[in-house]
Amino acid sequence: MAVYTEINDEELARFVAGYDIGELMSYKGIAEGVENTNYLVHASKGNFILTLYERRVDPADLPFFLGLMEHLASRGINCPLPVRDRNGKMLNLLSGRHAALVTFLEGVWPRRPKVEHCSGLGRALAEMHVAGSGFSLQRPNALGPAGWRPLFQKFSANADDILPGLSKLISAELDHLGGAWPTNLPTGVIHADLFPDNVFFIGDKLSGLIDFYFACNDALAYDIAVCLNAWCFETDFSFNATKGQALIRGYQSVRPLSSEERLAMPTLARGAAMRFLLTRSYDWLNTPKNALVARKDPFDYVRRLRFHQSAATIADYGGPSS
Amino acid sequence: MAVYTEINDEELARFVAGYDIGELMSYKGIAEGVENTNYLVHASKGNFILTLYERRVDPADLPFFLGLMEHLASRGINCPLPVRDRNGKMLNLLSGRHAALVTFLEGVWPRRPKVEHCSGLGRALAEMHVAGSGFSLQRPNALGPAGWRPLFQKFSANADDILPGLSKLISAELDHLGGAWPTNLPTGVIHADLFPDNVFFIGDKLSGLIDFYFACNDALAYDIAVCLNAWCFETDFSFNATKGQALIRGYQSVRPLSSEERLAMPTLARGAAMRFLLTRSYDWLNTPKNALVARKDPFDYVRRLRFHQSAATIADYGGPSS
Repeated sequence: MAVYTEINDEELARFVAGYDIGELMSYKGIAEGVENTNYLVHASKGNFILTLYERRVDPADLPFFLGLMEHLASRGINCPLPVRDRNGKMLNLLSGRHAALVTFLEGVWPRRPKVEHCSGLGRALAEMHVAGSGFSLQRPNALGPAGWRPLFQKFSANADDILPGLSKLISAELDHLGGAWPTNLPTGVIHADLFPDNVFFIGDKLSGLIDFYFACNDALAYDIAVCLNAWCFETDFSFNATKGQALIRGYQSVRPLSSEERLAMPTLARGAAMRFLLTRSYDWLNTPKNALVARKDPFDYVRRLRFHQSAATIADYGGPSS
Repeated sequence: MAVYTEINDEELARFVAGYDIGELMSYKGIAEGVENTNYLVHASKGNFILTLYERRVDPADLPFFLGLMEHLASRGINCPLPVRDRNGKMLNLLSGRHAALVTFLEGVWPRRPKVEHCSGLGRALAEMHVAGSGFSLQRPNALGPAGWRPLFQKFSANADDILPGLSKLISAELDHLGGAWPTNLPTGVIHADLFPDNVFFIGDKLSGLIDFYFACNDALAYDIAVCLNAWCFETDFSFNATKGQALIRGYQSVRPLSSEERLAMPTLARGAAMRFLLTRSYDWLNTPKNALVARKDPFDYVRRLRFHQSAATIADYGGPSS
């Protein structure tokens, strides 16, 4: 949550002149996004988000992310549309950073998601999955099962500094997931990070999805598992099955799940919890305490993981078993 | 430059409902302002800046600041207009902070001010001074001459940690200013902090003035002296007399200076440099090195002060001596 790269008015005016968006009227650095620097830019032809990509983003991935947003927007998904400059390019340089301009999306993300939010989320996620088919670029999931053990090895020696026993818990869970992970599920483009701060609503109506910077090709149902983790637990870590039911019903109203996907849901949910437990643990140990970005507590995902370990079927998440 | 106070969507929606500005469409925390937290709020009836006043602002001063903006806006000055809620109030509470909503002002502040900017600035400053007459509330200048010595005493013991000899330099300058400070100048409402980041332009045309949170009653010409310090020095600390001339000419095209004001300009400029030297020195010694807000180097104002000490008349600033 920070502005890492300052830009000046003259270089921004030159940058804006490269696009058919009119005159620069104002710009403000906004406190959103952990990875990149974002400015809200008002030009005489509209409002835009200008993103400067910082060190943690691999420039080789940018054509996938930007191309995906353009692909989805052209198929009616409400997401930021990358603006092409007068030469047809979506990506340029500004202040020594790769930079892209996307349309501004109205809406507010729900700090305390309600059942109605989960229902809209499910529908929008399924619509995104359907619309993603036909997108020509590919990007493997760097934070999928194949990436978990290498990431764990980077901090396993210090894992118990976070929580006594954490190293053993992760190690045993990785062993389990290695054997149980499904490989026969329908795949496609997934968002992979659809937390509440990436889903906008106006009132209770979903207005759009943002932040496709973890999007990749993977099992579609894994995206639901991420959302079950991110949207359906209460602050006391209890799972709210009414929210889970709303999410899965909303999803199935657009794209019905196969029996394999339903069967796999508890395992997928364990895997999704593992993915966030691993990245949060790594960041916890590697982010200075006084950094601009607040560290997120890995313990939240230990609690979620314990719930998933006790779940037998999709019914435990509010879903229908057939 | 930070968002000190987080707000949530539900409490903001309730807050917005208290005003006749339509439905909440989006809000973003913006990285502007050192003292307070600012959000850019888009409601269906327009764009607004929501300010949450943090600890360093005395709530007793808020009616002056907000009332002044309303007074100036009603007299045609382009500045943020505080929005009154359905009960006619300009000030409310949000997330435990005093909070006000003002209209959003288009424009971009010039990172490298040019001569044309200084000319527009001079005119706008004089127009503000003229429009300020008749404003009924009063606020003494807490950072005027009477406040300088008490502020210096708070850090004089450590001043030489910033720069060897700084304590002696400030002490001697305060002695000089104590004897030389003019008391016979026309007074009124001044902005007192009209740095480039508080003046917006669209292209080269001035679009408005913001940030009235140091405004007070004092000698009008002192406001010019602040601007000479803030706008007319180059990055090598040389004074650009062409910019000074543009500023003073622009000002006089609206409000001609009296002979006393012209005579006093070098002294006023020394005083303005002293004011920023004192606050920057104090902040330098009292801001943790890893704070969210960047410390500004007090040395810049030692260099400015030396120029002013060598100035004999307003002609040294590009102004006409009669």
